[in-house]
Amino acid sequence: MLHQVASGTVTVEIALRQLSMAPFETLDFATVDHHRALRQGYPEVIYAEGKTPSQVVAIAERTVVHGGGALATRTDEATRVALLARFPDAIANDVGRTVRVGPVAVKGKRPVLIITAGTSDQPVAEEAAESALAMGNVVGRLNDVGVAGIHRLLSQGEALTSAGVVIVVAGMDGALPSVVGGLVACPVIAVPTSVGYGASLGGLAALFTMLNSCAAGVTVVNIDNGFGAAAAATRIVTRDS
Amino acid sequence: MLHQVASGTVTVEIALRQLSMAPFETLDFATVDHHRALRQGYPEVIYAEGKTPSQVVAIAERTVVHGGGALATRTDEATRVALLARFPDAIANDVGRTVRVGPVAVKGKRPVLIITAGTSDQPVAEEAAESALAMGNVVGRLNDVGVAGIHRLLSQGEALTSAGVVIVVAGMDGALPSVVGGLVACPVIAVPTSVGYGASLGGLAALFTMLNSCAAGVTVVNIDNGFGAAAAATRIVTRDS
Amino acid sequence: MLHQVASGTVTVEIALRQLSMAPFETLDFATVDHHRALRQGYPEVIYAEGKTPSQVVAIAERTVVHGGGALATRTDEATRVALLARFPDAIANDVGRTVRVGPVAVKGKRPVLIITAGTSDQPVAEEAAESALAMGNVVGRLNDVGVAGIHRLLSQGEALTSAGVVIVVAGMDGALPSVVGGLVACPVIAVPTSVGYGASLGGLAALFTMLNSCAAGVTVVNIDNGFGAAAAATRIVTRDS
Amino acid sequence: MLHQVASGTVTVEIALRQLSMAPFETLDFATVDHHRALRQGYPEVIYAEGKTPSQVVAIAERTVVHGGGALATRTDEATRVALLARFPDAIANDVGRTVRVGPVAVKGKRPVLIITAGTSDQPVAEEAAESALAMGNVVGRLNDVGVAGIHRLLSQGEALTSAGVVIVVAGMDGALPSVVGGLVACPVIAVPTSVGYGASLGGLAALFTMLNSCAAGVTVVNIDNGFGAAAAATRIVTRDS
Amino acid sequence: MLHQVASGTVTVEIALRQLSMAPFETLDFATVDHHRALRQGYPEVIYAEGKTPSQVVAIAERTVVHGGGALATRTDEATRVALLARFPDAIANDVGRTVRVGPVAVKGKRPVLIITAGTSDQPVAEEAAESALAMGNVVGRLNDVGVAGIHRLLSQGEALTSAGVVIVVAGMDGALPSVVGGLVACPVIAVPTSVGYGASLGGLAALFTMLNSCAAGVTVVNIDNGFGAAAAATRIVTRDS
Amino acid sequence: MLHQVASGTVTVEIALRQLSMAPFETLDFATVDHHRALRQGYPEVIYAEGKTPSQVVAIAERTVVHGGGALATRTDEATRVALLARFPDAIANDVGRTVRVGPVAVKGKRPVLIITAGTSDQPVAEEAAESALAMGNVVGRLNDVGVAGIHRLLSQGEALTSAGVVIVVAGMDGALPSVVGGLVACPVIAVPTSVGYGASLGGLAALFTMLNSCAAGVTVVNIDNGFGAAAAATRIVTRDS
Amino acid sequence: MLHQVASGTVTVEIALRQLSMAPFETLDFATVDHHRALRQGYPEVIYAEGKTPSQVVAIAERTVVHGGGALATRTDEATRVALLARFPDAIANDVGRTVRVGPVAVKGKRPVLIITAGTSDQPVAEEAAESALAMGNVVGRLNDVGVAGIHRLLSQGEALTSAGVVIVVAGMDGALPSVVGGLVACPVIAVPTSVGYGASLGGLAALFTMLNSCAAGVTVVNIDNGFGAAAAATRIVTRDS
Amino acid sequence: MLHQVASGTVTVEIALRQLSMAPFETLDFATVDHHRALRQGYPEVIYAEGKTPSQVVAIAERTVVHGGGALATRTDEATRVALLARFPDAIANDVGRTVRVGPVAVKGKRPVLIITAGTSDQPVAEEAAESALAMGNVVGRLNDVGVAGIHRLLSQGEALTSAGVVIVVAGMDGALPSVVGGLVACPVIAVPTSVGYGASLGGLAALFTMLNSCAAGVTVVNIDNGFGAAAAATRIVTRDS
Repeated sequence: MLHQVASGTVTVEIALRQLSMAPFETLDFATVDHHRALRQGYPEVIYAEGKTPSQVVAIAERTVVHGGGALATRTDEATRVALLARFPDAIANDVGRTVRVGPVAVKGKRPVLIITAGTSDQPVAEEAAESALAMGNVVGRLNDVGVAGIHRLLSQGEALTSAGVVIVVAGMDGALPSVVGGLVACPVIAVPTSVGYGASLGGLAALFTMLNSCAAGVTVVNIDNGFGAAAAATRIVTRDS
Repeated sequence: MLHQVASGTVTVEIALRQLSMAPFETLDFATVDHHRALRQGYPEVIYAEGKTPSQVVAIAERTVVHGGGALATRTDEATRVALLARFPDAIANDVGRTVRVGPVAVKGKRPVLIITAGTSDQPVAEEAAESALAMGNVVGRLNDVGVAGIHRLLSQGEALTSAGVVIVVAGMDGALPSVVGGLVACPVIAVPTSVGYGASLGGLAALFTMLNSCAAGVTVVNIDNGFGAAAAATRIVTRDS
Repeated sequence: MLHQVASGTVTVEIALRQLSMAPFETLDFATVDHHRALRQGYPEVIYAEGKTPSQVVAIAERTVVHGGGALATRTDEATRVALLARFPDAIANDVGRTVRVGPVAVKGKRPVLIITAGTSDQPVAEEAAESALAMGNVVGRLNDVGVAGIHRLLSQGEALTSAGVVIVVAGMDGALPSVVGGLVACPVIAVPTSVGYGASLGGLAALFTMLNSCAAGVTVVNIDNGFGAAAAATRIVTRDS
Repeated sequence: MLHQVASGTVTVEIALRQLSMAPFETLDFATVDHHRALRQGYPEVIYAEGKTPSQVVAIAERTVVHGGGALATRTDEATRVALLARFPDAIANDVGRTVRVGPVAVKGKRPVLIITAGTSDQPVAEEAAESALAMGNVVGRLNDVGVAGIHRLLSQGEALTSAGVVIVVAGMDGALPSVVGGLVACPVIAVPTSVGYGASLGGLAALFTMLNSCAAGVTVVNIDNGFGAAAAATRIVTRDS
Repeated sequence: MLHQVASGTVTVEIALRQLSMAPFETLDFATVDHHRALRQGYPEVIYAEGKTPSQVVAIAERTVVHGGGALATRTDEATRVALLARFPDAIANDVGRTVRVGPVAVKGKRPVLIITAGTSDQPVAEEAAESALAMGNVVGRLNDVGVAGIHRLLSQGEALTSAGVVIVVAGMDGALPSVVGGLVACPVIAVPTSVGYGASLGGLAALFTMLNSCAAGVTVVNIDNGFGAAAAATRIVTRDS
Repeated sequence: MLHQVASGTVTVEIALRQLSMAPFETLDFATVDHHRALRQGYPEVIYAEGKTPSQVVAIAERTVVHGGGALATRTDEATRVALLARFPDAIANDVGRTVRVGPVAVKGKRPVLIITAGTSDQPVAEEAAESALAMGNVVGRLNDVGVAGIHRLLSQGEALTSAGVVIVVAGMDGALPSVVGGLVACPVIAVPTSVGYGASLGGLAALFTMLNSCAAGVTVVNIDNGFGAAAAATRIVTRDS
Repeated sequence: MLHQVASGTVTVEIALRQLSMAPFETLDFATVDHHRALRQGYPEVIYAEGKTPSQVVAIAERTVVHGGGALATRTDEATRVALLARFPDAIANDVGRTVRVGPVAVKGKRPVLIITAGTSDQPVAEEAAESALAMGNVVGRLNDVGVAGIHRLLSQGEALTSAGVVIVVAGMDGALPSVVGGLVACPVIAVPTSVGYGASLGGLAALFTMLNSCAAGVTVVNIDNGFGAAAAATRIVTRDS
Repeated sequence: MLHQVASGTVTVEIALRQLSMAPFETLDFATVDHHRALRQGYPEVIYAEGKTPSQVVAIAERTVVHGGGALATRTDEATRVALLARFPDAIANDVGRTVRVGPVAVKGKRPVLIITAGTSDQPVAEEAAESALAMGNVVGRLNDVGVAGIHRLLSQGEALTSAGVVIVVAGMDGALPSVVGGLVACPVIAVPTSVGYGASLGGLAALFTMLNSCAAGVTVVNIDNGFGAAAAATRIVTRDS
């Protein structure tokens, strides 16, 4: 048929229209539908904000019954209860507001290290950790090592050097990624959080700080976007798996 | 001496003060001084904005005479002329405003693919490309494939799937990284550019678009920061080299 | 009398003051009172935010008893219940938060196609759809075809090419109108939504993206303004009716 | 071949890759490449900012020698001189900073009426007018009818009612489109300009005013984007031609 | 004593310290304490936001028992009920959220005309009206005469020309003060309101519009600040009383 | 003819169209064309920014030859030279960048007092003073009395209490109008200036300060808008003249 | 061991790693861990926002049982009740939302004077006062002396001149610190508050005003950050104690 | 006379008016005129931006001939040349753009330590250093110790602990003050600089970072305000001298 297209017997428009009738999964080259349903073995991700508990359960069922896994983020308590009732083996995280359902094969060769500046950054770090686990990563943690007590971070050389990727979660002044970026050679993903008040501008201050990091090669995701950081980390560490 | 510290005979303050007199290079654990002089084989990076041509040449000399390489970014024409006069083998890029000096050993296993949305994004893409080359990467290019003519991008499946990292450079609406992020599984680094006028807000519009990308796992660097994107890409592709 | 004005026997001030005593409907040249009560056959539009259910019902009654139609937008549930109790034939839309009352004559020659990037953009799309229907248009829909899975949009060539106007509703990165604008020749109206968090800035990120669209001739309305997009579409498709 | 794809003998990735080797023009369904080279008879648009006079001339030559037309926008004086030297029949507009080259067939059935609030808005209005002419429209003008002297606008009922589309160009308070939107039933495209100082915020104040217009169905383009407004108007008035 | 100061026998510091022990009311030159307790006959103004009903009543009592008047703004319902219970003759305004207590002598020679663009601007206009009445003004009203139906305003020439000051209250596009400023010669005070959504930015869009008014000599107060507009109007119309 | 309109023999549209053919000056009720050419005796105001010297001279000639006056603002030096060459009696102000041409009859009963916080605010104060003079006011001045040396202001009680209106010009912290507003009972017009750097945000910091003034009844004009403040003052002090 | 490091027998990385195993308290040189647990005698500070009452009590217990003091800020009522139940001698401040537990030795030589502009600034001033007391300072107060009634402040010369540091708390126009900075020679710390509405931008207007203070040497902390101002004051007045 | 005031024979208004005729220097209680001419021995500060060289020289002469000192900031080269020609002993600083004239008595007991994050922050640090020297301080320096190479800062324990005040000058991510604030117990004044591009927002990103510092008690001055930081430091270290 493509030859017909090349020779002009069939217009490309017709070819494309026919092509589009094929089911979406056959249309994928590389990983076209990466965002919603990641490739075989990755979880279906359900952004629960604005969905009812039964809607979230229904979406999870669609994937899990085919043997896949699901990850629900930004869930409220009622949604977590409903998912646990339907999937008793699911793992719910109240702080990170996530629920993981179904089996996960570990694929990441090197650990994803998640660092927080303060205890208030914990919810975003938990979302990142649960998301990274759901995508098959080994996850390490380093909590409450903000730059105002820099010795706490400096004493963690081993954890820092063994990481495959570092996710740095920080609100307020957002200064931690710059320090970490100067200490490690691996990729560093900075996640600003909305922790703070007044001139923190709902996380924009930390976001701008991170984009201006004086440590070369630090990249940034949206405010409070623990899931996005985990997805970026997964793109990195499972690349050669 | 650390035992003395632990037993209290010597205060940590004194120990640290003595420790700090040791030359900086011995102080490094992991890659402490990553930003300015990257590890053995990486170039010294000279941000030329606000420096005179002779200052830039002097800094480059300091590194190059020891057998290392240097990369000057944000140079004006006079600085490029001065560097070429002193280092006849240097490679100057007028569009990207960079000069590379000294030998580079290629270390990146997989190519860094740099994509631009429009011709006006070229200067930032050139800075990214030159920086990536200076850091030992193989660099691929895909130009002028903005989303308003989406078929131009879709026809490049092979280039996209063979990349180790993709750097997407786009101004105005900054929409390209979302489309690319949906097409590839490898890491995607988005670089907003200050191309545009009015509501482009000097690149902030593109920056915010990219931070809100509906493709999971796209990370972002500062506006016009081609060098930073290259440094981030290098952290990824040379990680296991 | 105008001659008296010209000759100075009567001042223009007096003439205008008298003129203004004429009832408003006779004052209209072209469509002076377009915003609140559109010309014969168009609905009275009631922006329900900040009005009580009985106030909304009362305003609707004023128009409907004269044989006209009414459209209430931004209603809460109590208002929708009250309108349905008073006008049993009314059509309420819980997602779009609208109620249509009274008969509508279809006037639009070509369909208004409403496209959404994600499921969270649905409420704004519903407001646009209901508003467009209330103004006498034929409405088509294309849901959840965001740019991170671009093949879903590309497979809809027929729907795209047959539209008279396309309304593209998108939050987060707001990238979809640029892609659509490159695919169709008809007018494209972009509606940013407040969907997202952090750097989405309550929809401003999507708004700025759309204003910077690299597809020529895309126009934009206010954030979440589904009604406004429908009104703009109606100005276009019923122009020659 | 699509059957092979459906049956699995050939992967879609291979099919798409082959498909993409077909020349771009055959890939178009609908009007894919609308932005840069509009369909047969429309001009090639050259955004001259950041290009040298000879580059602009070269791009124009590519199109014009094939019998097409070209429109250069945001030109400086040197570029206009260079274009006139190469194409003696070209029409240059110093205020609007545009040059039109080549023949244009008038296609728009109804006139595009361009209204300005003040004399300082003239450059943007000229860019809009020249762009609209280059795209085959009939163009009308109404200058300096800002709302602080509202009677000047009100005396133009005939011009207003006969327009197919109205483009309203206004800086400072940006109030004019709301008034015009209440007077006409046809589509209204508002163009904020960067005219003003202080709290005009480079045109953002006018932009936000227009997005909040109390006249239903007014749409908006980027600040100073006269070309974009003309392109949007062209999508409307030549739709059925 | 001032001579002692001049001759140096007494330091100015001591003189000033003594001076400051005199009760505040004697310290006033001109109207020093204008903001809280306006001069004899003006009301004590109580900004009720963040105060309990009994606190507001207590403050009102302090003034009223001395024969003065009081004006409470931004009251909630409980505070209005409490004030009416204690001062049965008080005048409460539920829409404007104000309560006036005590007698007022009318001092303004010419009326303060308060104009609104839409019905949603009513609460701010009521606050302005009640405040103006409490300060001894004659108040006129013109409601719902927004610029999208400009004929409604134009028919009110008599009301406009007889005003001593005009207060124009408008949200959304904030365009009305520019039109009014072009129609009248008297002072025009513009009050932006937080009416609107999305790009109205909580009233900032209307505020910026008004600051950029193309009608010369329009002045502006803070968003939703009906009280401030009334105070400014009072400064004008009672100046020569 | 209006009777014909009322009886329906002639449509209002036709009436209005005819009415609009009358020359503008007869159309005025009240002072419709106030902004550009103020009523008999007021100057024609020429905003010189973006106009050539000869254009400014030409506009001034049009008015002055009919016995009126003209005021040019935001002039550059060449324009001032050209105006003085053509009108030897004109008064040019290099600091305020203004030129006044033609005779002025003093109309303001009470003086307009212009106060500056610092010497850098002088240009805006000069524009205000020259504009106020051109509109027939008596002008008083009080310079460099910023709040960091509050005693300088406090020693000026007589000047403050005798003013009809006070214009307060201040950049940086913009705190002066609040202090002045607490000292005088007459109208206070605050003019923020773009004096400052960094967090002064080009005058926005001072603007916001003034809008939030804790002194009741202070009104504000655009940044650096000395002319606007003078126009507002003129609306106040010449009201009853 | 440091000699071994210098001679190369032991790498610095190993030395540092060992060093970091020493307990944190011995690692401190100067006051490394200043932020959370200040040096001997300073309170443990607990930011209660987002913590449960029992969590706050538990953290306080950890410190207090060792003879130290604790300060809880941003507490809700339940937390204050829980702390008082567990520590009957604790001092709770409902307005400032703080609780102080345990003994405090007064160390500050000169008083910390806390000034407010209006009564609405009281909560932030109380947080500052309680924090300063918990850190061992003598605290003075001056309330409701905003610049609109400047004589109230000027009458307080003695309190102003005897202060060791002045903390000025002000919302709305934030003008007070400039006046105070011109009256005293000691350090002045400005605290913007989120008091106000509309153009107060949640305290940003006052923040920007203070950063632009025309009084030299005024420093600023975050919006509503009474605790931070007290900590800064403590750094100053206890420096030489 | 004050008794007359108390008894009512003389109004306070008259007393104050007379009082104000006394020369300013006698009016000072405490240090009223601190900003422009600091107390005996402090320099007159001349902000040279917008002043001609001869104006700056004239202002300096006024002070210096009376035996005082002068400090000119933000000078251009011509002004520095003019000052050196007139005052051959003056000290000009080309990087900091300052000139110090006249003798200075050292008064600060403890050194003011000025720290920079990068070499681009040097101009602001030089302005701070020269200003601190002109005000009689001992000044220490620590350059180029940004957080991306944290060991460089940590090795400077002795300099840090011996400082009386630390001024931290940093652009880009502005992270350094948080680290320094955690290492020292003395006052820390943070100066954001406009160094950077894109999301640095002309220094606003660094400013917001510093206001959100996680180290308690860090205070902030305006962007690039080296002089202000020095003035604040002087208020602290010379307080008890």
